[in-house]
Amino acid sequence: MSEAPCAFEQGGRRCVLHSPTAMPQASTFLWNRRMLLQLNCRGYATAQFMQPEPAKYAHAPALEAKTFMQPEQPYYAHHPGRFCYVKDEDSGGLFSAPHAPVKRAPDGFAFSVGQGDVAWTVRCDGIEVELGVALPVDDVAELWTLRVRNLSGRARRISLYPYFPVGYMSWMHQCGGYRADLGGIVCSSVTPYQKVEDYFRNRDFKDRTVLLHERAPDAWEANQAAFEGEGGLNAPSAIVGAQSLARGDALYETPTAALQYRVALVPDEAQDYRFLFAPARDDADIAALRERHLSAHGFADATARYAAYLDEGRGCLRIETPDPWLDDFANHWLPRQVYYHGDANRLTTDPQTRNYLQDHMGMAYLRPATARAAFLHALSQQEPSGAMPDGILLVEGAELKYINQVPHTDHCVWLPVFLDAYLDETGDDALLDEAVVDREGRAASVAERIDRAMQWLLDQRDDRGLSYIAQGDWCDPMNMVGWKGRGVSGWLSLASAHALALWAGICARHGRDAQGAAFRAGADAFNAAVNRHLWDGDWYARGITDDGVAFGVRADDEGRIYLNPQAWAMLGGAADEARRGRLLAAVEAELVSPWGVAMLGPPYTGMREDVGRLTQKFPGSAENGAVYNHAAVFWLHALYAVGESDRAWRTLRAMLSGPDADDCLQRGQLPVFVPNYYRGAWRLHPRTAGRSSQLFNTGTAAWLYRCLVESLFGLRGDGDGLRIAPKLPSHWPRARARRRFRGAEFDVEIERMQGLAQTVLIVDGQRLDGDRIAHVRAGHRYVVRVELPA
Amino acid sequence: MSEAPCAFEQGGRRCVLHSPTAMPQASTFLWNRRMLLQLNCRGYATAQFMQPEPAKYAHAPALEAKTFMQPEQPYYAHHPGRFCYVKDEDSGGLFSAPHAPVKRAPDGFAFSVGQGDVAWTVRCDGIEVELGVALPVDDVAELWTLRVRNLSGRARRISLYPYFPVGYMSWMHQCGGYRADLGGIVCSSVTPYQKVEDYFRNRDFKDRTVLLHERAPDAWEANQAAFEGEGGLNAPSAIVGAQSLARGDALYETPTAALQYRVALVPDEAQDYRFLFAPARDDADIAALRERHLSAHGFADATARYAAYLDEGRGCLRIETPDPWLDDFANHWLPRQVYYHGDANRLTTDPQTRNYLQDHMGMAYLRPATARAAFLHALSQQEPSGAMPDGILLVEGAELKYINQVPHTDHCVWLPVFLDAYLDETGDDALLDEAVVDREGRAASVAERIDRAMQWLLDQRDDRGLSYIAQGDWCDPMNMVGWKGRGVSGWLSLASAHALALWAGICARHGRDAQGAAFRAGADAFNAAVNRHLWDGDWYARGITDDGVAFGVRADDEGRIYLNPQAWAMLGGAADEARRGRLLAAVEAELVSPWGVAMLGPPYTGMREDVGRLTQKFPGSAENGAVYNHAAVFWLHALYAVGESDRAWRTLRAMLSGPDADDCLQRGQLPVFVPNYYRGAWRLHPRTAGRSSQLFNTGTAAWLYRCLVESLFGLRGDGDGLRIAPKLPSHWPRARARRRFRGAEFDVEIERMQGLAQTVLIVDGQRLDGDRIAHVRAGHRYVVRVELPA
Repeated sequence: MSEAPCAFEQGGRRCVLHSPTAMPQASTFLWNRRMLLQLNCRGYATAQFMQPEPAKYAHAPALEAKTFMQPEQPYYAHHPGRFCYVKDEDSGGLFSAPHAPVKRAPDGFAFSVGQGDVAWTVRCDGIEVELGVALPVDDVAELWTLRVRNLSGRARRISLYPYFPVGYMSWMHQCGGYRADLGGIVCSSVTPYQKVEDYFRNRDFKDRTVLLHERAPDAWEANQAAFEGEGGLNAPSAIVGAQSLARGDALYETPTAALQYRVALVPDEAQDYRFLFAPARDDADIAALRERHLSAHGFADATARYAAYLDEGRGCLRIETPDPWLDDFANHWLPRQVYYHGDANRLTTDPQTRNYLQDHMGMAYLRPATARAAFLHALSQQEPSGAMPDGILLVEGAELKYINQVPHTDHCVWLPVFLDAYLDETGDDALLDEAVVDREGRAASVAERIDRAMQWLLDQRDDRGLSYIAQGDWCDPMNMVGWKGRGVSGWLSLASAHALALWAGICARHGRDAQGAAFRAGADAFNAAVNRHLWDGDWYARGITDDGVAFGVRADDEGRIYLNPQAWAMLGGAADEARRGRLLAAVEAELVSPWGVAMLGPPYTGMREDVGRLTQKFPGSAENGAVYNHAAVFWLHALYAVGESDRAWRTLRAMLSGPDADDCLQRGQLPVFVPNYYRGAWRLHPRTAGRSSQLFNTGTAAWLYRCLVESLFGLRGDGDGLRIAPKLPSHWPRARARRRFRGAEFDVEIERMQGLAQTVLIVDGQRLDGDRIAHVRAGHRYVVRVELPA
Repeated sequence: MSEAPCAFEQGGRRCVLHSPTAMPQASTFLWNRRMLLQLNCRGYATAQFMQPEPAKYAHAPALEAKTFMQPEQPYYAHHPGRFCYVKDEDSGGLFSAPHAPVKRAPDGFAFSVGQGDVAWTVRCDGIEVELGVALPVDDVAELWTLRVRNLSGRARRISLYPYFPVGYMSWMHQCGGYRADLGGIVCSSVTPYQKVEDYFRNRDFKDRTVLLHERAPDAWEANQAAFEGEGGLNAPSAIVGAQSLARGDALYETPTAALQYRVALVPDEAQDYRFLFAPARDDADIAALRERHLSAHGFADATARYAAYLDEGRGCLRIETPDPWLDDFANHWLPRQVYYHGDANRLTTDPQTRNYLQDHMGMAYLRPATARAAFLHALSQQEPSGAMPDGILLVEGAELKYINQVPHTDHCVWLPVFLDAYLDETGDDALLDEAVVDREGRAASVAERIDRAMQWLLDQRDDRGLSYIAQGDWCDPMNMVGWKGRGVSGWLSLASAHALALWAGICARHGRDAQGAAFRAGADAFNAAVNRHLWDGDWYARGITDDGVAFGVRADDEGRIYLNPQAWAMLGGAADEARRGRLLAAVEAELVSPWGVAMLGPPYTGMREDVGRLTQKFPGSAENGAVYNHAAVFWLHALYAVGESDRAWRTLRAMLSGPDADDCLQRGQLPVFVPNYYRGAWRLHPRTAGRSSQLFNTGTAAWLYRCLVESLFGLRGDGDGLRIAPKLPSHWPRARARRRFRGAEFDVEIERMQGLAQTVLIVDGQRLDGDRIAHVRAGHRYVVRVELPA
């Protein structure tokens, strides 16, 4: 990979892409607790809001399936987006900002991604257009600014056409038209339904979509077909073939929201516009949105309040390293992504239990009170058997959907995994004694409930002492390994060992010695069973099918080795040093690629009926041989756990779109979030390997943050203290960090020193015995110097 | 309306549109028992096939919802379609056939719709392209021909690019590439699923989409994004910016099927190409499709076999009238549409019971054995209570979907309605004694089962003697009139009276006097109850809500009058002559529009919670004030029943896209099928009133055919004879018909004669007493002359 500068740059809290064609899929997202807006560099957009299930207010021109987010596939001409056409009234020249639909090559372009806003600057033929969008904290609304500036040095007459397509709203009812009284285009619909009970469910839906303006337009068009005419989106007849939009309406026709402003600009003159695009229930709702937001003051207020909102989720770590791209990512983008997960719960009403627990594990570093409440909420949905359900219902009336309808057997594992991180970070031991009332109205303490969950894991073992997989464990589409009731999961057995060991440790530290010893024995039994039945000579098998066939083993041509059992065997202690050495070598040889560590290899190229759906997925996509970052981050975690700092650094490095030109272009993604996966199968499909899924919903974020805080910078809570044990890559001579912890701040300077035999810690000028600062004092600023052997 | 010639013409068995812009939505359809292909004049296409549920093999670029057919909304640039780009290699000039995606104004254009094929002729810049498509009878496959001809008078070098977009196939697996061994582009996918049981259901799906060629191309492209590049569909970068397609593949990217042929043509030279576009399961399936069809012989064979298939469904009537547009429609297009319904069952696995029975009522005139079998199949799903289910399951594993999950109370009505027509047409009295075994294994004769169904209608009455409506009757979205269990339906009460009376008549004719008398009394009781509780002074109310509020009455501002109660009051005898006069006048004043008779008026403009979902539909769309042809055709039937021939003619005339230019342009539909509705609300929304829904699935077809045969031409079976009583409109001086009936043929000449006091019938040269030819002899050709009073 070359080190040539990439098409983007970042600094402070912005990341800027300078070409609309270099990364056509590049995108970012804005959110608040009620909505999500994913914005593509070319102007395409996907927006969702909760009512209470995810809903859309700007649609494709066809009836779309309701499904989970799928941003990997390319945008197409009529994909929903937010655009502004610009026509020169004298020459007829036409372009559009950001880039689509006209896609004219710009003289200048910037897609500038901020933490709380997104902005574009587009220059064509001496006219510069700046588009910007931000969200309020409490409303479902997009606040758009448009600035046009004449840089051509001569007087210009142009028309601006903000164009916000609304798409196919509903086969029951859809229409659109201009409402002078409300100040904008109002498109109305009725969410289609057939059953009586759905009427009551839908009655209060925000079934309108509005584009409100501050400055009154000269003309408008609310009818998509009339807007396009024969010209199509790249040269709409209403723009190219007419002086004025026709002020048309849409009557059970696909509506749209297009405005026209005729503008005369002297040299260097600029004009500003503000718009609000949002779903709404009725006239009063629309008027209220306008009143609250649609003014210079309203926009400024929303920006300030959003900044304050983001600040509530700022991270507990600021770093300064020899790799500034990592600084930007770790200081700004990653905690922002963790915060999104923990505060907005991925904009779903039924997060998978494992996701919900891990997302809130991340929140422990940002807003521990939120993490605590989420944990208690999850535990309140524990089943009488001790099992955890497949999803956690967040609102009244929510239902388990999609994959949450398929039974999985791993959810209990994540309870101690969460607690381990949460208790270290907060020292909130009282949580263990908190009473939790379940749906049957029975109360039990957190500790008792986790006992039961651990016992459930112990109960769900076969004669060999291995965990049944049923229709899936953490790998959903491995749904036919154990559907007949006999197949077992190697990973889950190892994960159970890890979970039991973590819980045993917590029990021991909290005076629950008997439970601690029992669960410790359970952990050991799991590890022993795995070592007996699933060690394949150089690595651990992934499982044994209903028919007694071990898979993820050397004998397999495809799916020969899976990453997760190896990672968790290191975490949970199953692998002794000899086995660790062999499996490290095997992962290096079989799974490590230029794009990261694949989840399994070689990818399956056809259905294996005794493994399941996974083997039908496209090779290199999703779990089938992709660099699945959520798996890779556990590998990272495990590498740190066994002290493999340099290997860990390479894994971390490959997990992120860095500054290398080839690298980021192939990934097609700005380094503003870590995606759930990169395409793998790099031997089979090198052309597409490394490409980002563009999906920012992933447990990777929380774990990556934890690894940065607790492992790379080694600043981990421990009882009432902070343990300091950085694991810097060997090429870093020094690094700095500021850590917030239990109300204190730690300014940490780390430096490699020649001739040092072992690490030296100096705290507030005093040399520290050991690596632990005890009795952390809230409000105190600790000055810490760490000297590492070179 | 002007009488200027329209943009289309028809004759023989073709209908030809000469402009791609006059009716952008104009479409037609081809089908066989396993697939359906709706083709738009501009090249857009929607294809479905059964495996066993409806599935697609060419998709939108976004994940589409699975839903019923919705062809009313406009096509958009990336809508699935079948296209051929043509580039002049010397000038770079570009156009596409049929019209999209380039949409260049052609020098010549014809969209030529045949009974068994569809063809386009497009001429631009001296190059003429003919595209044609037909279907085989037994396979799911499209057989495409392409002919290019140089009419420019000079040598030309061009490239042809057949472009068949495949779209977003699946998030689990999709890819595409050229397969030299199979001779075409093969795009593969796995239908997404999550549950184990769906694996077994999907295992044999045809998850590939193939474009096979006869002549090997010079280049190809299987990657949609690479094909479009920055140019987009109107000027694809792969065509405009390059000499040759790049032979690319799609790897978990949106696939496409584009080929390139470099062609040098001397003046007047033509070249021909054949292609096959189809879903397929595997290589063997693909090879077999090629072997069977992809040759001149294969195409000719498919065409011949398809013609034979259509001939099996030819109508029982050929007419010649002063209105040739009606002749074309009645002789060719309408029986073809009836045949589609009856033989392909609308390409659904769970047709609504009422639709299934009415569709097969139509089949009684085409292929009575099919109608008989369908009727017995429907009756085998009768519930023990006597009720009929909401849908009839046609294949193993089928389920009730969409609206069939909402309980309706009218399905029993349609049993005697079917039988009345079927027995008249066939004289197949033995059907009544046929034993039918239901799902519980209990046998009962057809007559006994219909007795039970009629008794069920009698049982489902309230204290007033009116029929409960539950969550809907024939009007699905009137779902909140009676959902609390008390509301009643005026229409259903009247329809029950009609059904009971029909059944009473059949019983009486077949020696079941006791049953006949009982059901006759039941019919009278229904009519009396309706006259007592629902006559509103000038028309019949539509019903009474759960809360005792009559609706569809003069006091209502919206939904004041509904058409169906008026029609069925005339059919079932509730309305005496005085009431008939009043309701005829009311319908004329309130519901008759230039575009036909609306189903209700004025349309609702907002939710009425005691009526239901209907009132939320867009005014003028679907049932809410539209010219709903299935309702209008019962009005037609009723008008004929009471001798209102001229009123009936006007109703019939308005039901069809005729030859008037304004009329057909506003409807936007070629007269090749009768759509389920035309947009109504002509006072509220005059711009869109009259527009066709483009949906050819409708019970209208069967009823319209029945009205033409039995009423307009008055050639109705009666016992072992044929009754002859034409009801020509007064502006027809003469008309001719040929009627097939019970194996005989009747050549009928009808003429108005001055000075005649009453109708005179001459059969085979002999004057007939009365209007009935008794003892019809199979094999005989009757020559009938009907002289009508002028």
